[in-house]
Amino acid sequence: MRIQSRHYRTIWPHADGTVEAIDQTLLPHRFETRRLAALDDAVAAIATMVVRGAPLIGVTGAYGLALAAAADPADSAIEEAHARLAAARPTAVNLRWALDRLRALLLAAPPLERRALAFGEAAAIADEDALACEAIGDQGAALICAAAAEHPGRPVNILTHCNAGWLCAVDWGTALAPIYKAARDGVPLHVWVDETRPRNQGASLTAFELGGEGVPHTVIADNAGGHLMQHGLVDLVIVGSDRTTRRGDVCNKIGTYLKALAAHDNGVPFYVALPSSTIDWTMRDGVAEIPIEERDPSEVTHISGRAADGATTRVQLTPDGSPARNWGFDVTPARLVGALITERGVCAASEAGLRQLFPDLA
Amino acid sequence: MRIQSRHYRTIWPHADGTVEAIDQTLLPHRFETRRLAALDDAVAAIATMVVRGAPLIGVTGAYGLALAAAADPADSAIEEAHARLAAARPTAVNLRWALDRLRALLLAAPPLERRALAFGEAAAIADEDALACEAIGDQGAALICAAAAEHPGRPVNILTHCNAGWLCAVDWGTALAPIYKAARDGVPLHVWVDETRPRNQGASLTAFELGGEGVPHTVIADNAGGHLMQHGLVDLVIVGSDRTTRRGDVCNKIGTYLKALAAHDNGVPFYVALPSSTIDWTMRDGVAEIPIEERDPSEVTHISGRAADGATTRVQLTPDGSPARNWGFDVTPARLVGALITERGVCAASEAGLRQLFPDLA
Repeated sequence: MRIQSRHYRTIWPHADGTVEAIDQTLLPHRFETRRLAALDDAVAAIATMVVRGAPLIGVTGAYGLALAAAADPADSAIEEAHARLAAARPTAVNLRWALDRLRALLLAAPPLERRALAFGEAAAIADEDALACEAIGDQGAALICAAAAEHPGRPVNILTHCNAGWLCAVDWGTALAPIYKAARDGVPLHVWVDETRPRNQGASLTAFELGGEGVPHTVIADNAGGHLMQHGLVDLVIVGSDRTTRRGDVCNKIGTYLKALAAHDNGVPFYVALPSSTIDWTMRDGVAEIPIEERDPSEVTHISGRAADGATTRVQLTPDGSPARNWGFDVTPARLVGALITERGVCAASEAGLRQLFPDLA
Repeated sequence: MRIQSRHYRTIWPHADGTVEAIDQTLLPHRFETRRLAALDDAVAAIATMVVRGAPLIGVTGAYGLALAAAADPADSAIEEAHARLAAARPTAVNLRWALDRLRALLLAAPPLERRALAFGEAAAIADEDALACEAIGDQGAALICAAAAEHPGRPVNILTHCNAGWLCAVDWGTALAPIYKAARDGVPLHVWVDETRPRNQGASLTAFELGGEGVPHTVIADNAGGHLMQHGLVDLVIVGSDRTTRRGDVCNKIGTYLKALAAHDNGVPFYVALPSSTIDWTMRDGVAEIPIEERDPSEVTHISGRAADGATTRVQLTPDGSPARNWGFDVTPARLVGALITERGVCAASEAGLRQLFPDLA
């Protein structure tokens, strides 16, 4: 997608054998890229969240293994690189999946071919992700077009929570892909961007992405969505998903459930955009079964931003001695989800709906 | 209530004819008081939010008029002081009400008696407010005790949003009064404190108040409450109200409606504590009729906190060029409110419920 009128992916290879990635730790206040020339650089980029978002972490891991194979294609070197990369963000499912895919391919090939094979496979994983996201975009754009037809003469108002945009993937994103597609098709639209405390991925990354693509948007406090829906200022909601159960329960960034409740109370369609890789076919009841990560309380008690002198500065928000807790996700029951938008099409948030689109996986 | 084991009100008079108030602009990171010696000091304290919260602004206005009458008891001086104080926070209903009450009293009295009369009446308004809040505390504490009886052997978990504590009143507060009463009665309890973006009155003021009183509490992002309720970690919710319609719709800090939806979805009792002065008997449908203040977007795009060097520092959270909007309140329909806690008792959030408690006002 675009940043200052130039097209970017989040990560891309160079002819000289290095890899370049957008440094997401500096966004939204500074746009810089980071060159990854060796395994160490890739491990550090993942561990320090220069790259973040499950799909992007997976692709970065694959390129990390390619950089390792270029330096030393021996089995032992590939195994060691696999272990180091996998440990860089231990909970990211896509990372392990991408590393396993590359390792199996490389260990089955002659050492001299491994470098080229590895770069090729990493690029293939990146392209597959971009294609899946673009397909989600096409599917979801149809829903936005339909909403536009219902409200002629004014922009469609879409609310989103957190960042499920191209910065967490390779290109397009999931929840934002339908918005980018519809905007490029000329559908008049406007996005309400939940700031998404405590890490503020909405206020920083989603707002930055939408600004780069020239999509009209407004940042709001997470508290505001219900008021907007009560007053007809939201036509539809689109969010992403970190894990979706076979019955259609959706685990996503903390606070998603509150917006789903408000959408339901006000008759606003609530859509979840997800690649099928996030469906967990082993789980049924999301609230009961999905483990919810609890993160560092300092993400609640402190926040970083750009001070008047331009420096990124961290400030404390709470009184000394007041503890905080910080759950990263919540679960939205399928009954509150209007539809799931996948790379294969749109379906009901139910076991029957998912089975129909994914008979090969269910 | 207590700060570092010493009892305070938010504002109190001295024998030398001055008035002292807690400087709330410095909380939670610094506790200081401000001496108000003349009308100008009172106007500035109200305008710059050294004092905030509708009841406290009213009392400060009354003391401001007393300071003016002490300097010059002439009719013209009292009229001018009334006008200046009323303009300091034009939307605060209690301010105008307290000023009108004092002016009527003073203009009817001989000039030489006005100074003493004014200080006496300001103190009476302060005492009335503290008594009403304490009565709300007694009424609401009974509900907390009942919840404690249902869950023996563990603390009652109470969620609150924003700051409806003693810092916005003279003493006790509204939503927090039942908590203070129950805690002093030895009921084991724990409070989940919504940080309450964008102005973070929960993370700063409510957490500070509860810390001072020694009430166990935990600050959470506004997004977290739904997740907590899904997992049985909230026994009841108590919030305040800025305006309540005769049918029981509640206008309160933005985001209150989202918590009410989650409470309803999870069978968690949702209580609203309010002095009867916040009931607007002229309104019925809160969503349709109550005007919602839209505030400066910079409250969303920027935030202040204590930097590592101890200085209060303001940082920008959003990208340059991303607009924001900032509504201050939302309306929770009466159907989502379990009960109203008033100084006269607890009643259903309905016209019948309110009429029964307030036949003289309805």
